[in-house]
Amino acid sequence: MYMKPLYADIIAVGSELLLGGRVDSNSVFVSNLLAECGIAVRKKISVGDHRADIQEALRASLKRADVIVLTGGLGSTLDDCTREAVAETFRRPLIRRKQAYENLQERFRRFGRAVTPLLAKQALIPSGARMLANPVGTASGFLMREGQSVIVVLPGVPREAKVMMASQVQPALRKIFKSTRRYWFHAFNTFGLPETDVQKQLDLILMDYANTQFGLLASPRGVKVTVSCWVVGDSQSSVKKKEQSPFFPEWNHLIKQVRDCLGPWLFSEGERTMEEIVGELLRGHSWTIALAESCTGGLIAHRLTDVPGSSLYLDRGVVSYSNQSKRECVGIPAPLLRRYGAVSSHVAEAMAKGIRRRSRVDLGVGVTGIAGPGGGTVKKPVGLVYGAIDGPRGTQCRRWQFWGDRTEIKLKTSQAVLDLIRRYANEAAV
Amino acid sequence: MYMKPLYADIIAVGSELLLGGRVDSNSVFVSNLLAECGIAVRKKISVGDHRADIQEALRASLKRADVIVLTGGLGSTLDDCTREAVAETFRRPLIRRKQAYENLQERFRRFGRAVTPLLAKQALIPSGARMLANPVGTASGFLMREGQSVIVVLPGVPREAKVMMASQVQPALRKIFKSTRRYWFHAFNTFGLPETDVQKQLDLILMDYANTQFGLLASPRGVKVTVSCWVVGDSQSSVKKKEQSPFFPEWNHLIKQVRDCLGPWLFSEGERTMEEIVGELLRGHSWTIALAESCTGGLIAHRLTDVPGSSLYLDRGVVSYSNQSKRECVGIPAPLLRRYGAVSSHVAEAMAKGIRRRSRVDLGVGVTGIAGPGGGTVKKPVGLVYGAIDGPRGTQCRRWQFWGDRTEIKLKTSQAVLDLIRRYANEAAV
Repeated sequence: MYMKPLYADIIAVGSELLLGGRVDSNSVFVSNLLAECGIAVRKKISVGDHRADIQEALRASLKRADVIVLTGGLGSTLDDCTREAVAETFRRPLIRRKQAYENLQERFRRFGRAVTPLLAKQALIPSGARMLANPVGTASGFLMREGQSVIVVLPGVPREAKVMMASQVQPALRKIFKSTRRYWFHAFNTFGLPETDVQKQLDLILMDYANTQFGLLASPRGVKVTVSCWVVGDSQSSVKKKEQSPFFPEWNHLIKQVRDCLGPWLFSEGERTMEEIVGELLRGHSWTIALAESCTGGLIAHRLTDVPGSSLYLDRGVVSYSNQSKRECVGIPAPLLRRYGAVSSHVAEAMAKGIRRRSRVDLGVGVTGIAGPGGGTVKKPVGLVYGAIDGPRGTQCRRWQFWGDRTEIKLKTSQAVLDLIRRYANEAAV
Repeated sequence: MYMKPLYADIIAVGSELLLGGRVDSNSVFVSNLLAECGIAVRKKISVGDHRADIQEALRASLKRADVIVLTGGLGSTLDDCTREAVAETFRRPLIRRKQAYENLQERFRRFGRAVTPLLAKQALIPSGARMLANPVGTASGFLMREGQSVIVVLPGVPREAKVMMASQVQPALRKIFKSTRRYWFHAFNTFGLPETDVQKQLDLILMDYANTQFGLLASPRGVKVTVSCWVVGDSQSSVKKKEQSPFFPEWNHLIKQVRDCLGPWLFSEGERTMEEIVGELLRGHSWTIALAESCTGGLIAHRLTDVPGSSLYLDRGVVSYSNQSKRECVGIPAPLLRRYGAVSSHVAEAMAKGIRRRSRVDLGVGVTGIAGPGGGTVKKPVGLVYGAIDGPRGTQCRRWQFWGDRTEIKLKTSQAVLDLIRRYANEAAV
């Protein structure tokens, strides 16, 4: 049993990662899945499809890393050379593995294609390595031990690497290292949070927890607050998922303290999006909804319909970009538009009420603003937005002033309006 | 003058790059800006905020790299230690630079804050290094020569690193290396391209060009075809931007050959998006447009309105999710829905015609399909989509069968429908 900290390096292979706009995003889930096995990533490296560069990176990592995960370069083009580079480094011949070759034949048969010699490369595994079957693609991976290190080689296609990592690599690493270290992590998603005030309160809470860290990641969707720490249990069995609590009894208390501190700004925890939360609340109330969007241009409807089953509550959306369409689709009277202008609380409210009445839904939502870069004035600058909601608990309207480019203002507005719906639905539950 | 190839390593510093979901995206523009100076990136490394790890990466890169760019870890928190790690590696003391300190004071004065000793860290520069002023933030960077290598240290905030790279680092590297090598790159964006057929034709074209490479990057938005090569000129002056053509006279011919080969599948070149191209065509024709979306849930309207000035041509969009809204907002007769089902060419065409008639625009667009994961049947599986367009050149309707999850099917559908509008508008120009 390893009680000492375990470290991993991740080597992503592919010339497109160096020049061409692609970044190694596989390492995000690889890091997380390694952490679940008690292994911390110390270094991530991206190199091109060149044997010498792969080998240099591999040799450098061998000096310190307990685990080295290589992704990419296992395909069948002439560029792909990761399996050759690894085999050469350890002077092991590449051998065609029957199971890998049959998988390859089976996959190509479906497309009515034969396995050419170049394609057959994907079934080669270094002698003595354990094959990692690819259930969703053509290139097999492999896992091998070299001295104190474990080397894992996976395809670069995210979907393939992910499933192989979870179903084969994680169990193998747990068996090899029997680590009792675990990475504890919890994410709180907030919107509209006054960042500096909250940081002070969080720092106070954290003073009681050694080795525990807070993180604040800001984006147009809000501020993600994370709490994380590495903890060591005294036996392998005590770190199992279901037995986490006795293993670190203060954890649940810490989570609760942070939750209370974030209060109404907290909209979800973990990976759950605002649109999922809103969808769940609407289903909970059996409420239907209709949207009248102007400056967001359909983004709110798009986000709500990204959630499977959203047809249960979303009746319709109207993108009333022209003033004429505001009159025709939502019934905004021309005098109101003339008097207050399209970007005003009066028009936002009228949009919410209009779309609610016309579609006979429970909630009507209206949003109007100036996404820019043009169209702003001194009185109504770019980023000024009004959002309104009309429903069984009456009408609510809010005004925001956002900063950023057009895309950011649209995204921030959509998040703010969804948050308005969330708070409205939560109030109604009281 | 350096005629030999120049290589760079990029080291991104920040523990959030190892675990926490962030990836080093700075290296994308750093690579591009280095390539413009004739310098190719060979390796990208991400390490945490630990002196020992930064120093290990730095020492490894010093062995082979002509240029080493470090980003991140220059801030004023206790974690930030990049400047200390670099200074220690080269045994140079850190000295407060007057100009850097004044910039710091000036920036904090604006927020009514004083410069504490911890904040003042950001004005420290290793002895003998050249300071890189930060015109948009607080942390100064620096550039220094060590043996044959140039070391560049930049803040991790993308906006700051970008402007410092372009305005100070690029001129310095050009002056130091006087490289006559340049990276030539061109991207062609296609949709609906039969990938394998085209690859063969591209390979034939490329046979005439030594050292020139094709790349094919597939995504739900289509296949991006790239052509790239490194070329060496005979003098510094001949590689200036405006004199590229005589420097590599075959380049324009190559671009033209690829363009012809991609034919109608090519929708844009470089960074231009499909929605920009469609917007430009609509403006060119002085056409207005209205959308009736079902399965895309507002995504097409959202994408069209991401383009500044889109209010000139987009009149309105309707997300008719319920059958009732299809009748009310677009005028689809109930018998048509009953007879053919909501997902049918008849309904797509009726949506296009209905929205066009109701909003009195030049082009009406209708799209209906099954985004999944539920709702599919044997006859109408998930991913089946119909898109229709009605306008001055008559009515066109297309049927697609897409694969992927809900998000992918929505994105692919939006791209396909925008491409349908593009082709329709292009035909009309004939």
